[in-house]
Amino acid sequence: MNGALALVRTFQAAGVELCFANPGTTEMHLVGALDTAGMRSVLGLFEGVCTGAADGWGRMTGRPALALLHLGPGLANGSANLHNARRARTPLVCVVGDHATWHLASDPLLASDVEGLARSTSAWVHTSKCSADLPRDGAAALAAATRATGAVATLVVPADCAWGEAPGPASVAGPAAAPQAPAGRIDAAARALRDGSPSALLLGGHALRERGLRAAGRIARATGAALVAETFPARLERGAGLPAPVKLPYFPEDATRLLAGYQRLILAGAPDPVAFFGYPDLPSRLAPDSCEVVTLAAPGEDVPAALEALAGAVGATRDSVAASAARPARPSGRLDPERLGAVLASCQPENAIVVDEALTSALPWVLGSAGCPPHTVLALTGGAIGQGLPCATGAALACPDRPVIAFQADGSALYTLQSLWTQAREGSNVTTVICANRGYRILRVELARAGITEPGPAALALTDFSQPAPDWVALGRGFGVPSVRAETSDDLCRALERAFAEPGPHLVEAVLD
Amino acid sequence: MNGALALVRTFQAAGVELCFANPGTTEMHLVGALDTAGMRSVLGLFEGVCTGAADGWGRMTGRPALALLHLGPGLANGSANLHNARRARTPLVCVVGDHATWHLASDPLLASDVEGLARSTSAWVHTSKCSADLPRDGAAALAAATRATGAVATLVVPADCAWGEAPGPASVAGPAAAPQAPAGRIDAAARALRDGSPSALLLGGHALRERGLRAAGRIARATGAALVAETFPARLERGAGLPAPVKLPYFPEDATRLLAGYQRLILAGAPDPVAFFGYPDLPSRLAPDSCEVVTLAAPGEDVPAALEALAGAVGATRDSVAASAARPARPSGRLDPERLGAVLASCQPENAIVVDEALTSALPWVLGSAGCPPHTVLALTGGAIGQGLPCATGAALACPDRPVIAFQADGSALYTLQSLWTQAREGSNVTTVICANRGYRILRVELARAGITEPGPAALALTDFSQPAPDWVALGRGFGVPSVRAETSDDLCRALERAFAEPGPHLVEAVLD
Repeated sequence: MNGALALVRTFQAAGVELCFANPGTTEMHLVGALDTAGMRSVLGLFEGVCTGAADGWGRMTGRPALALLHLGPGLANGSANLHNARRARTPLVCVVGDHATWHLASDPLLASDVEGLARSTSAWVHTSKCSADLPRDGAAALAAATRATGAVATLVVPADCAWGEAPGPASVAGPAAAPQAPAGRIDAAARALRDGSPSALLLGGHALRERGLRAAGRIARATGAALVAETFPARLERGAGLPAPVKLPYFPEDATRLLAGYQRLILAGAPDPVAFFGYPDLPSRLAPDSCEVVTLAAPGEDVPAALEALAGAVGATRDSVAASAARPARPSGRLDPERLGAVLASCQPENAIVVDEALTSALPWVLGSAGCPPHTVLALTGGAIGQGLPCATGAALACPDRPVIAFQADGSALYTLQSLWTQAREGSNVTTVICANRGYRILRVELARAGITEPGPAALALTDFSQPAPDWVALGRGFGVPSVRAETSDDLCRALERAFAEPGPHLVEAVLD
Repeated sequence: MNGALALVRTFQAAGVELCFANPGTTEMHLVGALDTAGMRSVLGLFEGVCTGAADGWGRMTGRPALALLHLGPGLANGSANLHNARRARTPLVCVVGDHATWHLASDPLLASDVEGLARSTSAWVHTSKCSADLPRDGAAALAAATRATGAVATLVVPADCAWGEAPGPASVAGPAAAPQAPAGRIDAAARALRDGSPSALLLGGHALRERGLRAAGRIARATGAALVAETFPARLERGAGLPAPVKLPYFPEDATRLLAGYQRLILAGAPDPVAFFGYPDLPSRLAPDSCEVVTLAAPGEDVPAALEALAGAVGATRDSVAASAARPARPSGRLDPERLGAVLASCQPENAIVVDEALTSALPWVLGSAGCPPHTVLALTGGAIGQGLPCATGAALACPDRPVIAFQADGSALYTLQSLWTQAREGSNVTTVICANRGYRILRVELARAGITEPGPAALALTDFSQPAPDWVALGRGFGVPSVRAETSDDLCRALERAFAEPGPHLVEAVLD
C-alpha cells in the first residue's frame, strides 16, 4: 500500500473516525486513502472551520481529532483555531501536505516554511522523510497528541511520502495516562485547607468535568473553601445538581478583587492566574502577593484523581451543595444582553452543548443558566476569535444526539462564518444565536480603558460595523441554514423553540439594542 | 508623543495613506494614533481581507501598504495573503501588536510565537524593545519593505512600546532603487539573441508593466524572440496596442511543451521556471535540459532598464507588433467558462483592473481579452487561494477612478468573502463575477492526475460543494453588496452592464453548467 493509506489506517487504529479537511493538490493521495480506508471526511470551506471543528470534536470525544490541510497557507488559515485547541489541550493531529521532497529545492510559488508555522501552535512537529516512515510518523503524532490530557501535533507529509510505498500501518500505543500529582502536593494542599483561613480552589481543565467538580464540591463543603473556575474552560459541566464554581472574571480589576478575599489559592488543573492582557499600572498576576498559591495538580496531570485524593485527605465525604434547578422567567420587550441571556436560559434544551463565544453578551446567560438542566460549555480557550461556529460544528458531529447551541458574538462569527455551510451539509443539530450588536463591543471598552473616551473616525471605523449591518438572515440562508431575525424576547423565544424542535442547523440573529 | 503616534507619523512621511486593519486590545493606542495623525483606516472583518487588500493597494500604488493586525492569531489569519504579497514582491509593512513586554513572561492565553509566524512570509521581522525605538523600527520596516521592487516586512509592537513615550517620528529614506543588472548580462543576452536559434524572453515582475513590455516587444521584433509571461504575474498590463506575451501554461506538461520549442530562454524578471506542483515522473524544471537559460535581470533588479539596454544592444528601435483592438462576439445560451469569458471580454470597461482568481474558469477570458481596451491584471502570485476579493478591495481603494473586476472562482471566494463588506462600506467600484461551478474543479483534475478517476465518497465530499450550493446572491446581499444571479449569457451581459454603469460594488453569480 502507499504511504497515505498506511497513515490513514494507523489513525483508524487509534480511534480516529473522521477527518476535517480542506485539501489541495499535494493531498490527493491522502484523499484517495481516506476513501480506500472508508474514513468519513468532512469538508470545511475554509481551514479555520476544519481546525475549530476538530477541536470541538476532540473536546467532546476525548479521542484524537484529525485535520487535513494544504501546505503553509492552509496551515496558516487554520492556525488561530489550532491556537485555541492548544490552550484547550485538545488531542489533535494536524496533517499538512507539502510539496514532494525533491520539488521543494526549486522553491515553487506555494512553498513556505511549514514547520516554522506549525511550531507556533503544536507541541510536536515533524516532516516525514520518506513514504516508508509515514505510518510510524503518524503513530508518533498520535502519541504526542494524546500525551497527558492532549496537545496539537503536526505532521508534515511531502506528496512523495504519500504516494510512495509503505510497509503497512504502524502499531499504535494507547493514549498515555495523565501523570498523577505527587502525594506531597496532596498533603500540602490538605494542610493548607485545614488551617481555616479563607481559601479557594481554582479549577481548570478536567477539574471542571463532572468527576472533578463533585470532588471539589465535597472539599468545599468540608473545608469552607470557595470554588472558582478558570475564565475560559475547554469544557465545563454545569447545571442543576452540579457544584457551581464562580467564574474568574475577565477584567483584571474584577479578578483581583475576587481573589483578594483569599489567603490561600489551591490550583487544581489551572495555572497561577494571570490577566488576559497587560495594562499600564496593573500587574500580570491576579492573586495578591499576600495569597499563598499551592499547586495541587498542574494542567497536564490527573486533576480529578488529585481532587479525590485531597477530598479523602480532608475527610470530605458529604456531597457538595449543588445548583438547584431554576430557570429565569421569560422577559418581554426588545432584546438586550440581559433579555437575550434570560430567554436562552429559559428555553435551552436538556443535555445541550453550549459553545460560548458571546463575549460581551455572555454574562447574563452565564448567571441565569446555572440552574438549567445539566449542560456542557465549551469556551474560547485561547482567545483567538472565530472559534465558536467551527467548534459547534465539530461538537455536533461528535455528539449527534445532543443539541448544540453556538452562543455567538457577531464580530467573532464573521471570522469563520463558512462553518454554517458544513452544518448545512452534515445536517448538524446546531442552533446558532448571533448576538448582533454590530460592533466589536469589547474594543469600545478597551478604547476607554486606554484613555480614548471619544473615539475619532479611525477608532469608529475599526470598532463598528453597523454601516452596513451584516444581514445574518441572508448570510445564514446563503450557506443553506434556515435563518430568522429576532428583535424582541418573544421573537427569540419562538425562534429558539422552533430551532430546538426541528432537526438540522438553524440560525437566529438576535438584534441587540 | 507616545510610540504609537511617532510610528504612525513615520509611516505617513513615507507616503503611507491608509491602514488596513483588524485591531484588538493590544493595538488600542495604535488606533488612537491613527486618529491623532489623521490616517484613513479601513476595517476588514477578517485579517485575510486586510493583508490581501494591502497587497492590492501596494501593487497598484507602488508605495508601501500598511496592515495592522492583532497578535499571533491575527497574523496567522492574514498570512495566506501575506504569502501572496511576498511572491508578488509587494512593498508591505505589517504591524502586529503583541502583549506588553513585561506581560509575556506570564504566558497569557493569547501569547504565541509571533516572530516565528511572521518569518514564513516576511523578508524582515523585528520586535520592538521599547517605545523610544518604535519610530526607528518603523523606518527600518519601511526600508525593508521598499528595498528593490518590494517585500513584506513585519514589525511586532508590544503594547507598552505603543503607549510609552517616544522622541518623535523617525526620518525616512526614500525607497531604494532596484539595482541595475550588470552590463555583462546585457552583453551575454544580446550575444545569445544574435545567433538566430529559437529563443524566448520569459518576462516577470516589472517586465510586464508597460515600459518593460514595450522594450521586450522591440527586442522580439528585432530578433524574432518569442515573448512569454510568467503564469501568475503580480501586475500585467495588457490589451490593444500593447505587446501580448504568451502566458506560460499552468500544467507542467503544457509548459514543457511550449518551452521545448526554444534553444535559449532569456530570463527578464522571472526565475528559471519550475512546475507549480511536483508530480511522479515529471521534473521540477520546465525548460528542457537542452535549452540554454540566460539571466538578463533577476526579479529584484531593475528589469525594465535591463530590457531597454538589451533592446539598445540588439539595435531594436522599431515598435513591437502589438495586440489589435478586438472583442469577442457576445455569445448566447447557458453559461460555461467559454461563454462567460467571451461575455466578460465583450463588455469590460476601459482601463479596468481585473483581479484574476478564476482558476479553471479563467482561460477563455484570457484568450478573448488580449485585444480589449488596455487593462491591468493582478494574478494569484503565491497560489494561496482567497486572494481575489481582498486584492480587488485594495486595488479599488488605490485607484478609485478605475473600474475593478474581481474575476473569481467560487471555492476560492469563500475563503475571504468578508471582503464584500469592506467594499460595501467603502463604496468601492468593484464588480465581482463569481464563477459558480460549485466545486474545487481543479482538484477533480488533480484527482485524475493522481490516478483517482472514479472518486469515492471522501473524494467527492472534499471536492464538491453543490449540496447545498452556496447562494451568492444571498451572501453578497448579506454583506451589503447588490447581487444578482446570471444563468445565461444574456443575463450576464445585462448584469455586468448595470454593474459597470452604477457606482459602488456589485456581485454577479455566474452559474456554470
